Amino acid sequence: MTGPRFPDLIASLPATVPFVGPEELERAQGFAFRARLGANESVFGPSPRAVEAMRAADAEIWKYADPSHLALKTELAGRLGCGPANIVFGEGIDGLLGYLVRLLVSPGDAVVTSDGAYPTFNFHVSGFGGVLHKVPYRDDAEDIAALFARAAEVDAKIVYLANPDNPMGSCHPGQAIEEALPLLPEGCVLALDEAYIEFAPEGTAPVIAIDHPRVVRFRTFSKAYGMAGARVGYAFGDAPLIGAFDKIRNHFAMNRAAQAGALAALCDDAWLDEVRGKVSAARERIARIAADNGLSALPSATNFVAVDCGKDGPHARAVLQALARRGVFVRMPFVAPQDRCIRISAGTEADLDILAEALPEALAELREATD
Amino acid sequence: MTGPRFPDLIASLPATVPFVGPEELERAQGFAFRARLGANESVFGPSPRAVEAMRAADAEIWKYADPSHLALKTELAGRLGCGPANIVFGEGIDGLLGYLVRLLVSPGDAVVTSDGAYPTFNFHVSGFGGVLHKVPYRDDAEDIAALFARAAEVDAKIVYLANPDNPMGSCHPGQAIEEALPLLPEGCVLALDEAYIEFAPEGTAPVIAIDHPRVVRFRTFSKAYGMAGARVGYAFGDAPLIGAFDKIRNHFAMNRAAQAGALAALCDDAWLDEVRGKVSAARERIARIAADNGLSALPSATNFVAVDCGKDGPHARAVLQALARRGVFVRMPFVAPQDRCIRISAGTEADLDILAEALPEALAELREATD
Repeated sequence: MTGPRFPDLIASLPATVPFVGPEELERAQGFAFRARLGANESVFGPSPRAVEAMRAADAEIWKYADPSHLALKTELAGRLGCGPANIVFGEGIDGLLGYLVRLLVSPGDAVVTSDGAYPTFNFHVSGFGGVLHKVPYRDDAEDIAALFARAAEVDAKIVYLANPDNPMGSCHPGQAIEEALPLLPEGCVLALDEAYIEFAPEGTAPVIAIDHPRVVRFRTFSKAYGMAGARVGYAFGDAPLIGAFDKIRNHFAMNRAAQAGALAALCDDAWLDEVRGKVSAARERIARIAADNGLSALPSATNFVAVDCGKDGPHARAVLQALARRGVFVRMPFVAPQDRCIRISAGTEADLDILAEALPEALAELREATD
Repeated sequence: MTGPRFPDLIASLPATVPFVGPEELERAQGFAFRARLGANESVFGPSPRAVEAMRAADAEIWKYADPSHLALKTELAGRLGCGPANIVFGEGIDGLLGYLVRLLVSPGDAVVTSDGAYPTFNFHVSGFGGVLHKVPYRDDAEDIAALFARAAEVDAKIVYLANPDNPMGSCHPGQAIEEALPLLPEGCVLALDEAYIEFAPEGTAPVIAIDHPRVVRFRTFSKAYGMAGARVGYAFGDAPLIGAFDKIRNHFAMNRAAQAGALAALCDDAWLDEVRGKVSAARERIARIAADNGLSALPSATNFVAVDCGKDGPHARAVLQALARRGVFVRMPFVAPQDRCIRISAGTEADLDILAEALPEALAELREATD
């Protein structure tokens, strides 16, 4: 019997996935991580009000959620100073990036991103047959001028920019994006990923008119709001572009309790401030731990810190693996020269105690191995 | 400034959605439904163990869920008698149907379904540029022989069959599908939607080898397990076809608490039995209420009952609207002659008390209007 007839594009896709989850790494290594500092989750958790709202909603989980997410959109629109029609919610930024690519990219269309930037965006572009053009980082930051120039050169449908950036934690002042915007080519949409914006210095979010026809911004409840497992992200921008998501999205995809939790989280400004403070303290402590071990931490506008291990990619990977053997889960950039670093998420005091203990041991092990 | 450049396919798609949620209907009518009997949700709720598991997981919602869903897959594989590699979980059957269509359908490819069957499947087919060929129902049931014959005729990539069927509640014995299977055309995948299988008589699920290369079956936690708001569905079938979902799916899309809840729900067989009993009693009561009002209920293998309103589509729609004015939410089939019916989900005793009160009033109102 013959099997399914996959189109050429699908047949050509690799079966690899953008990220291996820590649970899978734990299964492979045979023990659990003691410090989960690799996925830029918020170990400080969600607002207690969000937990309460989710628990109340769990009893009504037999109901489908409102597919138009109106309560959540209305609250958020007030905060963003736009209308509900300027906002679309989805299954994390990951899901929304997939929808954006599907909306714009036909097989063979050009898309521009930075070499070493968010791989899940690339996964979606390849998955819809787009052709990725990658611009190198410049001084460990995404290079806005070069990205826009390349977009013009290759007639890109989308240019992706994360600000703050993942995996380096760098950021541009919003003004830099505002000033570059006139150079965004006609016919090219700027996908501005602001997943980490709540951790960045004031002024990092650019001021862009909500009805700019070719800018769409992405934010999430997975980072500062501590709800990565809930899967709530949103995109906002010009109503015609945002409205187009309704043509293709999985309307009933968002969890009902997650919606209730996100609404409660959004309204708890005090919790957000508290998390920001804890993240800031954790960043400083990670930098101190790095310095204590002769390594240097890069400045961070996010809830993680890129720590320069002082040599090349294979060395940083060896540090990462030596940390994993000691129960510390971290990740690292994919591309040189950024892959000289490991990427450590902001942890609790207890998490960072473990890091402080494990890092010198890991480095000592590597020194012995090369002696 | 020019806007985004949408490909022709996207530009041609309507902005309409497959279903309007009851919350949106409530906003439009200005009052809440007293009986929510339109979305085939399980008003009897999830297993208390599932609620407990979700509440426990809510505190850890800051962690991304395991993107490989291994705990859930392993438990389910044992119950289905297959391997974890034969199962893929996703954001409800809706999400998984979208992935299946994306995996197989290029613009212009033929897809076969029944005229009046699940509209969200059609939404995905149109969304990926597939060409839908619709086969009429036969005796208020999907016509397996005609579906497979049409699939051969139009060289379809996918043929969709729901057993039990939605919106009529009819079902074929599994043996009928087993016997038809040799006629499934080479190169055509059978998408067998078994969302309601837990409510159907024994023998409704066909016995099909898990490694049949062109059959993929869909089931869900939204119906019998009472977790529609959680968004957990799964597909199972031959490992190469199931594995292909990994090439394109949104790996981190499933809510962490939902995974924990689904695992607990899956293991609570006693609750499932209790729900089945309650649904069976509710079906009988809906049939009695229909009979008391001179209407006839169709036999149902699901958690809803199609009630024949005795005339045509406009009349059934008038009954539906008269019920809505009395706070009773029901839905109805889209296509004649099935649209002579309204579709009423199994409700609690209290829900059905409201139906018993509202239905005669609604019918009386319509009689007066035509007098």
